[in-house]
Amino acid sequence: MTTTTAFRGLVPPVITPLTDDREVDTASLERLVEHLVAGGVDGLFALGSSGETVLLTDQQRDTALEVIVKTAGDAVPVMAGAIETATSRTIERARVAERLGAQAVVATAPFYVIVGPTEVERHFRAVHAAVGVPLFAYDIPVCVHSKLANDLVLRLAGDGIVAGIKDSSGDDIGFRQLLVSLREAGLEHFGAFTGHEVMVDSILFAGATGAVPGLANVDPAGYARLHAAVARGDVAAARAEQERLIRLFQIVDAADPATSAGMTRGAGSFKTALRELGVIASNAISLPLRPLDESESARVRQILEQAGLL
Amino acid sequence: MTTTTAFRGLVPPVITPLTDDREVDTASLERLVEHLVAGGVDGLFALGSSGETVLLTDQQRDTALEVIVKTAGDAVPVMAGAIETATSRTIERARVAERLGAQAVVATAPFYVIVGPTEVERHFRAVHAAVGVPLFAYDIPVCVHSKLANDLVLRLAGDGIVAGIKDSSGDDIGFRQLLVSLREAGLEHFGAFTGHEVMVDSILFAGATGAVPGLANVDPAGYARLHAAVARGDVAAARAEQERLIRLFQIVDAADPATSAGMTRGAGSFKTALRELGVIASNAISLPLRPLDESESARVRQILEQAGLL
Amino acid sequence: MTTTTAFRGLVPPVITPLTDDREVDTASLERLVEHLVAGGVDGLFALGSSGETVLLTDQQRDTALEVIVKTAGDAVPVMAGAIETATSRTIERARVAERLGAQAVVATAPFYVIVGPTEVERHFRAVHAAVGVPLFAYDIPVCVHSKLANDLVLRLAGDGIVAGIKDSSGDDIGFRQLLVSLREAGLEHFGAFTGHEVMVDSILFAGATGAVPGLANVDPAGYARLHAAVARGDVAAARAEQERLIRLFQIVDAADPATSAGMTRGAGSFKTALRELGVIASNAISLPLRPLDESESARVRQILEQAGLL
Amino acid sequence: MTTTTAFRGLVPPVITPLTDDREVDTASLERLVEHLVAGGVDGLFALGSSGETVLLTDQQRDTALEVIVKTAGDAVPVMAGAIETATSRTIERARVAERLGAQAVVATAPFYVIVGPTEVERHFRAVHAAVGVPLFAYDIPVCVHSKLANDLVLRLAGDGIVAGIKDSSGDDIGFRQLLVSLREAGLEHFGAFTGHEVMVDSILFAGATGAVPGLANVDPAGYARLHAAVARGDVAAARAEQERLIRLFQIVDAADPATSAGMTRGAGSFKTALRELGVIASNAISLPLRPLDESESARVRQILEQAGLL
Repeated sequence: MTTTTAFRGLVPPVITPLTDDREVDTASLERLVEHLVAGGVDGLFALGSSGETVLLTDQQRDTALEVIVKTAGDAVPVMAGAIETATSRTIERARVAERLGAQAVVATAPFYVIVGPTEVERHFRAVHAAVGVPLFAYDIPVCVHSKLANDLVLRLAGDGIVAGIKDSSGDDIGFRQLLVSLREAGLEHFGAFTGHEVMVDSILFAGATGAVPGLANVDPAGYARLHAAVARGDVAAARAEQERLIRLFQIVDAADPATSAGMTRGAGSFKTALRELGVIASNAISLPLRPLDESESARVRQILEQAGLL
Repeated sequence: MTTTTAFRGLVPPVITPLTDDREVDTASLERLVEHLVAGGVDGLFALGSSGETVLLTDQQRDTALEVIVKTAGDAVPVMAGAIETATSRTIERARVAERLGAQAVVATAPFYVIVGPTEVERHFRAVHAAVGVPLFAYDIPVCVHSKLANDLVLRLAGDGIVAGIKDSSGDDIGFRQLLVSLREAGLEHFGAFTGHEVMVDSILFAGATGAVPGLANVDPAGYARLHAAVARGDVAAARAEQERLIRLFQIVDAADPATSAGMTRGAGSFKTALRELGVIASNAISLPLRPLDESESARVRQILEQAGLL
Repeated sequence: MTTTTAFRGLVPPVITPLTDDREVDTASLERLVEHLVAGGVDGLFALGSSGETVLLTDQQRDTALEVIVKTAGDAVPVMAGAIETATSRTIERARVAERLGAQAVVATAPFYVIVGPTEVERHFRAVHAAVGVPLFAYDIPVCVHSKLANDLVLRLAGDGIVAGIKDSSGDDIGFRQLLVSLREAGLEHFGAFTGHEVMVDSILFAGATGAVPGLANVDPAGYARLHAAVARGDVAAARAEQERLIRLFQIVDAADPATSAGMTRGAGSFKTALRELGVIASNAISLPLRPLDESESARVRQILEQAGLL
Repeated sequence: MTTTTAFRGLVPPVITPLTDDREVDTASLERLVEHLVAGGVDGLFALGSSGETVLLTDQQRDTALEVIVKTAGDAVPVMAGAIETATSRTIERARVAERLGAQAVVATAPFYVIVGPTEVERHFRAVHAAVGVPLFAYDIPVCVHSKLANDLVLRLAGDGIVAGIKDSSGDDIGFRQLLVSLREAGLEHFGAFTGHEVMVDSILFAGATGAVPGLANVDPAGYARLHAAVARGDVAAARAEQERLIRLFQIVDAADPATSAGMTRGAGSFKTALRELGVIASNAISLPLRPLDESESARVRQILEQAGLL
């Protein structure tokens, strides 16, 4: 069995547009996928954190994944999150994702239940054994409250258990060390993706396989230009594009922090920007989150204008 | 609408016995419920953390709840966990629990998704609005990584949104302050339960409604005696019984900490003890956890003997 | 060598009154010590967290300790904090405290420097070896960011390294387990003090040696009555007094949380209350903290009135 | 008043060599400073975390700083840590550092005492007002347990309170955003230094003023080559040197994690490497830490050989 996958380059975590009564807005989702493919992305990550996967019912998850897979067609491959509290539930969701056409599944460490490295390793090995498509490890300690240690990732990579990692740990230092260790171990085929928005140029120059930035929902073409600049070794152009995207990323500060948390700032502002750009119909978001209000949306519009997108 | 419930006194979180291939062992679960009722419990909490709810599939959850409700019959009331990452999923599980006969549902703050007090309050209000039985708030920051502040609990209690709280926060100091504040606010009917094993005498003397100790799976009669001693104001007898239970609680240290985490120590040792006591058939536990091995089980047996249970 | 000490019962952590230019107000400090002794305390803890020890210069620390020791005279014994980042600095301060007349010294785990249990144990053993008076361990993870595990405390107690513990961990559950373990190990002489204000009745009934509540600066007589009620086995009187003190403890919520943190809420409100009671001259507090303002002070006065102290 | 300083480029945090009885080894310290200057560093940071400042007595601190300032002479400028729990103590140490010849002082947020952003800002403003040399902010949440938010740093920079920052937060993402914000605010003169070892190439390419890597004690020439490669825009050479240094940085994993923590891994392994290189006499380290033992030292030697330093 090979763990090499078709995934490389720019693979945005697709947000899940909702109608105002908080059901999946399939027409908006189709337009969003077309927007991303037209922007030059290399793949799509469905049902990630930005896709509100833990806030959706199983039926909503299935609807979203079906639309994404169908709309992506042969244009780009799709990986899908199977993000659940523990092993049997993760396997259930991973098998559904495989059946619905995902070309890889993405799982986190277990959460809610308190686990150590032994349990995390057992979890990934059991999920791998139960599904027929490659498995990516999603390192997101801010949500699951444990960190995937580099030695565990190297062991799972070396044994062909996980085909890649999406690093949303905030620990670029550790990720850089992982890149060096993977190369030392002859594991260059392993897919090492950063999930962050603002150091993409640096991480790609350091040898990462690609990036999974939530902000690429809003400006896929900008991130595609950044990837292209890195690919041709143009440090100045990459840095200029990255810094433009860093300024655009300020939309995540549009929501009043006193009455909003985490995902409202991320997915909530991405959705608001996409509505302003005419890609999706509403910035509705799942309970218990709230959508950005009018004054917060005005701030998003202002930043979009400064970034040259409006 | 009243938020007063039938729940008071000793309401253990029922562990979920599994067969060696990790399916719900319904025969063992029936025997466990009979063991608890015979031991003198006042109610049952199905599908809590100790019940491995986040490690079970939805179908396994349903099976476990059906057996518990049916076996409990009219003997004692049953509350059931609807423990899910966010609002719509919690409502789905709460409605299933209601349909299967639970007389109250128990929900935590959202988890995985990062939330603040605003989102937590919106969550409980939405869940309350969607179900027909009383709602208990389950405060378990070690699993959900946010704490229910006393002022939020008082507001939800005063508005009749939640009928009670199960406090597994480890913060007995804050819980004591909550008890005083509830009385000051005229909310004596609110159900204030401690989820901890070792300060039950103190918390009951301070005015709590009851206790939800996982260890009561192993020794329901001991906790029933402790409740009775408190009820008749016998400080010395309560303390002696509590200290015996503290020594029995050392079974949670039987598992090697280098290769086990959280729930293996709790539910894993309770299951092992119940197997040794002949109540359930196996100490199997859901992936990614592992059951206690033979040498760890020997240590459990030794402690059971010292506690006079074997 | 014996580790038995003269300390038992009510041993408040003495706050350090300052003049408006933030120097030690020795006249106010004398009056405070007299207020505490008159209130019926059994000992004094100088230079603890509430005493602003980490905010004072070494010279200010010396001045405060000298005044406390001299004013206490033979009335009650004094223990003094030697709270420093690491071993050599702690030993320096412990030797000064011993020279200035402290009958015991109190040290925390090292802080700022990242340590594990091995380093913490080495630290206490080295401090013990370097000073001639008994050593108390001060467990305050909210400040030092590591917790003293019960097995470490038991080992240090059994080896005569530490004569007692002041538990400010917030973990009453662990402290209750420690009390049982100390008795099982024949270490009843070990001084087990709670540093918290609101579960003193429960912890004393569970067998603790005493309490070190910061709020006892404000109402030493109230805590003395609580201790006396426990000593004569009067559960109802102890609980009534404890609940009155819990309401009084609401003074820590007087400061606006948006512009104040930690110690402003504690020492800052205690100082304000003592100024209102006429014991000390000013509620000045060390930089970078700020004193309570007039409207916050009005709230403190209101609570003092409700508690029958004004 | 200007906040522009002489500091730029490579400014290692100088470790403090000790004799086997744990006093400052002034001869070794002189040799170390000469080793660093000969290696091509641009400045020196005395009494930082790697310099064991919180583990040294005030007298030891003074001795170390005097030797560093005197040995550095006119070759390179010296900044000195004034790392203390709170404001008055920090000011005391900052004034001593200024008197002993430091050309800038470096302070952290207060620690042990619990603080919020208001207190942190008040702290830096008070320290700035009390000293005559430029003040650097040291962001090291792993030690002080609070993070300097970018908006606070920007405000302190804009008001001329702090002349620069040493970022040891591990948050390269936030630091990259800070670099963009500083430029947008016209604060290019502000000194933005990374305190990390492994992303120096990326951070310098992103526009940082310099780096303060502890590992540069061991291989100053390597880091000097890395800085030079970045300065001439040679991405490939910078990356190759950085990756060599990442492999060298594995010396921090030489100490057995079961019996060592934090600084033993860092300063302890740097000291061991410097002893192996013949620069300092002993790898002794302050209590409660322990030096690397013989088998751990053998592992350090092996890595030094692989890196071409032995």
